[in-house]
Amino acid sequence: MRVFFAAPAAMWDRWAPALRAACPEMELCRDGDPASFDAVIYAPGYPAAGREMDFSPFTRARLVQSLWAGVERIVGNPTLTQPLCRMVDPGLAQGMAEWCLGWTMRFHLGMDRYPQDGIWRNSVVPPLACARKVTILGMGELGRAVAAMLRGVGFDVTGWSASGKPVPGVRVLGAAALPEALARAEVLISLLPDTPQTRGLLDARRLALLPRGAVLLNPGRGTVLDDDALLAELNSNRLGHAVLDVFRIEPLPPAHPFWRHQRVTVTPHIAAETRPASAAPVAAENLRRAMDGRPLLHLVDPARGY
Amino acid sequence: MRVFFAAPAAMWDRWAPALRAACPEMELCRDGDPASFDAVIYAPGYPAAGREMDFSPFTRARLVQSLWAGVERIVGNPTLTQPLCRMVDPGLAQGMAEWCLGWTMRFHLGMDRYPQDGIWRNSVVPPLACARKVTILGMGELGRAVAAMLRGVGFDVTGWSASGKPVPGVRVLGAAALPEALARAEVLISLLPDTPQTRGLLDARRLALLPRGAVLLNPGRGTVLDDDALLAELNSNRLGHAVLDVFRIEPLPPAHPFWRHQRVTVTPHIAAETRPASAAPVAAENLRRAMDGRPLLHLVDPARGY
Repeated sequence: MRVFFAAPAAMWDRWAPALRAACPEMELCRDGDPASFDAVIYAPGYPAAGREMDFSPFTRARLVQSLWAGVERIVGNPTLTQPLCRMVDPGLAQGMAEWCLGWTMRFHLGMDRYPQDGIWRNSVVPPLACARKVTILGMGELGRAVAAMLRGVGFDVTGWSASGKPVPGVRVLGAAALPEALARAEVLISLLPDTPQTRGLLDARRLALLPRGAVLLNPGRGTVLDDDALLAELNSNRLGHAVLDVFRIEPLPPAHPFWRHQRVTVTPHIAAETRPASAAPVAAENLRRAMDGRPLLHLVDPARGY
Repeated sequence: MRVFFAAPAAMWDRWAPALRAACPEMELCRDGDPASFDAVIYAPGYPAAGREMDFSPFTRARLVQSLWAGVERIVGNPTLTQPLCRMVDPGLAQGMAEWCLGWTMRFHLGMDRYPQDGIWRNSVVPPLACARKVTILGMGELGRAVAAMLRGVGFDVTGWSASGKPVPGVRVLGAAALPEALARAEVLISLLPDTPQTRGLLDARRLALLPRGAVLLNPGRGTVLDDDALLAELNSNRLGHAVLDVFRIEPLPPAHPFWRHQRVTVTPHIAAETRPASAAPVAAENLRRAMDGRPLLHLVDPARGY
C-alpha cells in the first residue's frame, strides 16, 4: 500500500516513525505520482499555509485520513471526492478531558482566590464537586470523554447535543433544552464542532442565560462563540471567566482584546493535541479497512460537516 | 444520650443542626455538669485559643469525638483518659482529593506557562497523565482517596507509607524504599500526619532526592517539612514549585518567606475542611457505638499519635 503524507514538513519527523511502526506494510511517501497512491494522510497547512490541497490527481486514493479531529478546513474542499475520515485519537480524547478537568478544577477550587499577600483567608470552603454543575455542549467522542472524567471526579455533569442522543451514565439534553442546559452551567464547556448549525451559537442571548459568575471553557471551535458578546458579559461582571483555546482566527492576533482581558485566559489551541503514539494505530486501522473495502472508522458526513 | 459540644462558639451554628439531624436521640449541650455527659464532641480552640481542654471532669464520657482529622493538638493532653476518635469524614477525603487533583493538574498541564502577552506558544504539548509520575506519602484514608482519584484520571501513582501495607490497585512502597519513592516523584504529595516519626522527614537530604523540576504539594502537616531546606531547593532552581496548605505555625506569619516566594503558593489550611453535612453522620455512628459498647471507628492509638 502506498500512502501520501500531505502534512506540513515540520510534522514528518514526529509522525513518520509512529505511522510506519503502526503500519509496517505501508510505503509512506512525501513525493511521487499522485495517481500511484492508495490513500492520503492529511493535516492542514499542506501544501502551504493558506493554500488549499488539490485532491483531484489522487485518482486511486480510497481514503483521506485527517490527522486532526476538526475537518472544517477540508470538508468543503471541492476537489475532495475521496472518503474523508476524522482522527479520533484515544490519546486526544484523554488530553482534551485532562485540559477540561484542569481548568474546571482551577475555578471549582477557587485556586486564584489566594493572593500571596500574607493574609490568611480561610473562611470560604469550596463546595465538593458533587455540588458543582457542569454543562458540556457537544456529546461526540470528545464530549463523552470529558463527561466521563468529570463524573469520575464527582462533578454534577449534564450534556447537551442537538440530537439529544442518550449517553450511558450522563443526562443529555436535546436541542430544545439548550436554555435549561445553559441556565444550570456554573462551568460551561463547549466541545461543539464548527458547522453551519453551531456558528455563533453562543451569542449574546444564549450567554445571558448562564448563571452569574459562570465560567466558560472553549476548547472546541472558535466560531461557536460571539467574541464581542462574551466580552460584554465579562465587562458587566455577569460572567466570571473564560478560558479559550480556539478562535475565529488562529493564531489569535496580538491586538485581540482577549489577550489583554483580565478575565480571559488564552491558551494556544493545545487542549486537544493529536499525539503520534496513540493516533498512528487508528490511522493504520483505517488504512487497512480502506484497502480491504471494509467500513471506515470516523467517516465524515459532508452534509453535517463532521 | 447527653453530649457536650466542646468546640469554638463560632462552630455551633454550622454544626449543631447537622449533628442533631444525624443523631436525633442525642441531647447536644454547650453547658451543664461535665459528669452528666455520655460523650464529648471536640474541636481545637476550646475552651479558648491556646488554652488546653480539661477532660478530667467528664468522668462518664465514653468517647471524645474529634471534628477534625488531625488530633496532634489533643492526643498528648494529660487529662484525656477517654477513648479519642479522629474524624474521617467521607466529604473530607473527597475534598482533600479534589485539592490534590486540582494542583496536580495545574502543574501537569503547565497552566501557568501561557503568559497573556499576545505570543502564541503552541509548541509544547504536555504528556498525558499516564506519563506523569506522582508519589503520595502517607496511605491512610486520605492518601488512599487521593491515590484513587489521581489514578482515575490516569496518573502514574505510587504510594509510600512507613508500613508499606498493601492498598488494592496502588503500588505502595515501604519505609526502606523512601529514596525510590522520592526519586520518581514529578509531583510529591505529603499526606503524612504529625508524629515523632514524620517530623522533619522532608529535610534537605530527602528533598535532594526529588527529580529536577519536581513539584511538592503539602496538604498534610507542616511539621513534616524543613522550611529552610525547601527554600534552598527552590532558590537553586532544583525544585519547580511548592503548594503548601499547612505550616509549623498557623496562620502562617505575614513575614514568613513562603508568602513572598515566587515559586511557593500558600493556601490557608483549606485542603481538607470537615463539612458538617458529611461529617455529622460519622460522629452519630460513633456516638451510638460508644453507647452500645461496640468497637469505635477511627480510634486514636496514643502510642502512634494518630
